[in-house]
Amino acid sequence: MELNEALRTRRSVRKFTNYVVTDSEIREILEAARVAQSWSNTQVWEFIVVRDSNLIRQITETYGPKNPATRGSLNASVLIVACAKTGTSGCYGGRDVTALSNWFMFDLGVTVQNLCLKVHDMGLGTVVVGYLDHEACSKIVGLPRDFTVVAVLPIGKPSGEGIRDMPRKALKDFVHLDKFGTPF
Amino acid sequence: MELNEALRTRRSVRKFTNYVVTDSEIREILEAARVAQSWSNTQVWEFIVVRDSNLIRQITETYGPKNPATRGSLNASVLIVACAKTGTSGCYGGRDVTALSNWFMFDLGVTVQNLCLKVHDMGLGTVVVGYLDHEACSKIVGLPRDFTVVAVLPIGKPSGEGIRDMPRKALKDFVHLDKFGTPF
Repeated sequence: MELNEALRTRRSVRKFTNYVVTDSEIREILEAARVAQSWSNTQVWEFIVVRDSNLIRQITETYGPKNPATRGSLNASVLIVACAKTGTSGCYGGRDVTALSNWFMFDLGVTVQNLCLKVHDMGLGTVVVGYLDHEACSKIVGLPRDFTVVAVLPIGKPSGEGIRDMPRKALKDFVHLDKFGTPF
Repeated sequence: MELNEALRTRRSVRKFTNYVVTDSEIREILEAARVAQSWSNTQVWEFIVVRDSNLIRQITETYGPKNPATRGSLNASVLIVACAKTGTSGCYGGRDVTALSNWFMFDLGVTVQNLCLKVHDMGLGTVVVGYLDHEACSKIVGLPRDFTVVAVLPIGKPSGEGIRDMPRKALKDFVHLDKFGTPF
């Protein structure tokens, strides 16, 4: 679809049909993530494609209490676990070079957004689950010590239930001219 | 353009023609950022549209040494400074609810990627400048204490010079099945 349509119509999807997402679809989705830009082209992302139903259950159990994505995640045919190498993006010699730490979080936002838009373009749906026990989840997928899980993305065909149009701020509420507080 | 084309052909652009980006174009660009998803729909982003040439110079002077975006930024007709409110995304009561701090960095990556894809779709170009003195830059644009500059995006019509096809890892180098290290 057109980029404009993709941006405008993407929604967070938490309920899926029993359609089984194919490996070929997953490759197409990850290809969109692959081409993303990143800090000095460091590409610190790693993606774990989780198909094993026991692992899917264990990962979903790391979600924060009452996470509305829990049920859909438990029944999903695949979870994509978005991970990052730490100490590289935004760093030289393992140390932050700016006042902002965790530049890998920014890079992961960029690549995950490519992925989300592509999922939507393919008639599939997903939601970014970030509220979880990252340490437990990192252990479950066997990450080495200098990597961390950032977010989990259950993928599936939207059942059509529970999709909400979330309100967004108007431009005037977050756009400024030259200095913070001056209307654009 | 088609989403696929936008994802595949977007490049970081650091040299611009002397075309002056219009306010109407800037609104269209920020509309793409506006519709992005975020942690609990917190929408912690703020965008400063910098037109004043004196401020453009001061902001560019906060870039890290030898930043390849410096010259293009100095001569740009507009910089968009992407900022975030801190202590809200990924937090309850001002405290992080996960082991990962700075969730605003992830949210800013998401909204900035919407913006970058839209800029490219419009035949314009930009680059994410993250290597800068964030504290100095935040002062220049007059941010209150609980906000921070995250990245600066000079926008313009690409001159065609200096655009590079950056190599990306192959899927097999960052995609795993079920556990880290198992090929997908």
